[in-house]
Amino acid sequence: MPELRQNPATKEWVIIATERAKRPEEMGLGVANPPANEKERCPFCAGHERSTPNEIFSFRSFGTAPNTPGWWIRVIPNKFAALLPQGSPDRVELEGLFHYMNGVGEHEVLIESPEHTLTIATMPEKQVEEIFLAYRERYIALSQDPRFEMVIIFKNHGLAAGTSLRHPHSQIIAAPITPNHIRHRIEEAMRYFDDHGHCVYCDMIQKEKKLGDRIVAETENFIVLEPFASRSPFETMVIPKSHASTFDAIAPERCKELAYVMRLTLKKIYRSLNNPDYNYVIVSSPSHERSLEYYHWYIMILPRVTAVAGFELGSGIYINTVIPESAAKFLRETPFE
Amino acid sequence: MPELRQNPATKEWVIIATERAKRPEEMGLGVANPPANEKERCPFCAGHERSTPNEIFSFRSFGTAPNTPGWWIRVIPNKFAALLPQGSPDRVELEGLFHYMNGVGEHEVLIESPEHTLTIATMPEKQVEEIFLAYRERYIALSQDPRFEMVIIFKNHGLAAGTSLRHPHSQIIAAPITPNHIRHRIEEAMRYFDDHGHCVYCDMIQKEKKLGDRIVAETENFIVLEPFASRSPFETMVIPKSHASTFDAIAPERCKELAYVMRLTLKKIYRSLNNPDYNYVIVSSPSHERSLEYYHWYIMILPRVTAVAGFELGSGIYINTVIPESAAKFLRETPFE
Repeated sequence: MPELRQNPATKEWVIIATERAKRPEEMGLGVANPPANEKERCPFCAGHERSTPNEIFSFRSFGTAPNTPGWWIRVIPNKFAALLPQGSPDRVELEGLFHYMNGVGEHEVLIESPEHTLTIATMPEKQVEEIFLAYRERYIALSQDPRFEMVIIFKNHGLAAGTSLRHPHSQIIAAPITPNHIRHRIEEAMRYFDDHGHCVYCDMIQKEKKLGDRIVAETENFIVLEPFASRSPFETMVIPKSHASTFDAIAPERCKELAYVMRLTLKKIYRSLNNPDYNYVIVSSPSHERSLEYYHWYIMILPRVTAVAGFELGSGIYINTVIPESAAKFLRETPFE
Repeated sequence: MPELRQNPATKEWVIIATERAKRPEEMGLGVANPPANEKERCPFCAGHERSTPNEIFSFRSFGTAPNTPGWWIRVIPNKFAALLPQGSPDRVELEGLFHYMNGVGEHEVLIESPEHTLTIATMPEKQVEEIFLAYRERYIALSQDPRFEMVIIFKNHGLAAGTSLRHPHSQIIAAPITPNHIRHRIEEAMRYFDDHGHCVYCDMIQKEKKLGDRIVAETENFIVLEPFASRSPFETMVIPKSHASTFDAIAPERCKELAYVMRLTLKKIYRSLNNPDYNYVIVSSPSHERSLEYYHWYIMILPRVTAVAGFELGSGIYINTVIPESAAKFLRETPFE
């Protein structure tokens, strides 16, 4: 069973992932490149459904059976799950100082397409819309489990971003705790609301629209920008203009527009930075803290073009070598179609 | 001039490093491997003193002139400094929301040896002692400048840890702000002190000694351990047993013992994990907040054997695939000499 452990000095939680645990002596070997016959052995490709755990959810053609071809989006439990759904998340104290609990949660993989070599930048827009509709379905389902406090939807693209599997996929983790990292963000947003009477993210959107130089793209309901204090080159925020604190507040019919802006943004990044490794995460409030007037959901995209080094790890201050306004101008001017 | 910018929503600071700024179109090229004639072109090797800015500090043979050979430790300004010493750190507000200030600070490089291919694991112990004595000198000098709030001493070893220069070196940054990341750590330590009347790190040392299974090594005045909630495989803490909140509290004569434990630890990591990329950072209180009874300095070593992925970036919860007790046992059993 995986375990959640709390750092007694900082109160931050860590997952000790025993299901994917490696022997210490395996760690010096580095990350393997994909094998030559990558595609034949890929568990996520159409026709290989039997090499994954049974599907939890899918979009598939009428009349096709689960765990057979015919799907275009497929959600399965992660075979090497960081958290497992059995049990209850009770805390245990050791020596009056160290706290831990069972690693209770969900860890799912969302296979974004039956096609091995596609990526959001190169997929049809309709497929991207279906990915976001599927995210929304899983977010709603997992946030209803009273044991889970956070539902985190994220994507790792490429080795530097933490995946060696090329087949396009995202991951969804439901965790039984709200980490300090998120608590602090919420507290800061709350303080701003108390001082000004508005959501800080709503105010940021207004000011960024007025200034204009950090905006990459804008549609009726979304804005894409390089944040004023971007932590690394091309950190990008895709943010809904209307206020809502949880991702599932998005109406299903608006997923089409979100898919359009996400594909546009990722395509510009793909083209201008030569298909860089990247992560994206849907930032949303804890799942039981709904309709917060001071918090605002958004998608953070982080191209992994520079390494996080000792200074960042020790101080939490990031050094960014690209001026956000230059990054925004560069992406604005990158052709989309 | 570099610029410090504050994220209006999280209050975290970021350095926009204009001195090392790249054009956006340069970012898609990836990190270059060292050239074949690496050593001849290395600015840090003995004999190449003229290819660096003038030295700030050195340990060198009697009678040799600054910026000529004869040194065994040399501290120089970073040629591509993230912060610059001129000016004053006044804050500016933009549109009532965005705060920034001049990037005032110091950014130094400490060249750890005249020899290009050594690393702490393979250096003579005496040389490691001199490195720590030099850290201490620079820490004291920089923490006396009233403009600087944090002095951060760190090392990047290898590409994944953020350096492409093989010549052994560390860096020292003096920053004009205390980041939220550090504030939160201090607040948690303060809360523990208020609840229990002891420093949480002092208590942790006592409990870890009692339990024993996460200890890698111990000397009279230092303990080396894999923290209970290690964030990644082989995260290692080298911590002084006696209470002190700032690094410069170390007596010069105790640097010999610290050098012994650091070299022992890094040599065990070097041997057992096949010379992995790693970072270390000296964690210390803000430089004007001295003699805190609730905070405790230590050295954090982070081998970079796994990638930080979307989940960690979005949630702040790390997934660690090696059980800290197994990592400690493995390092304990790795021969040192």
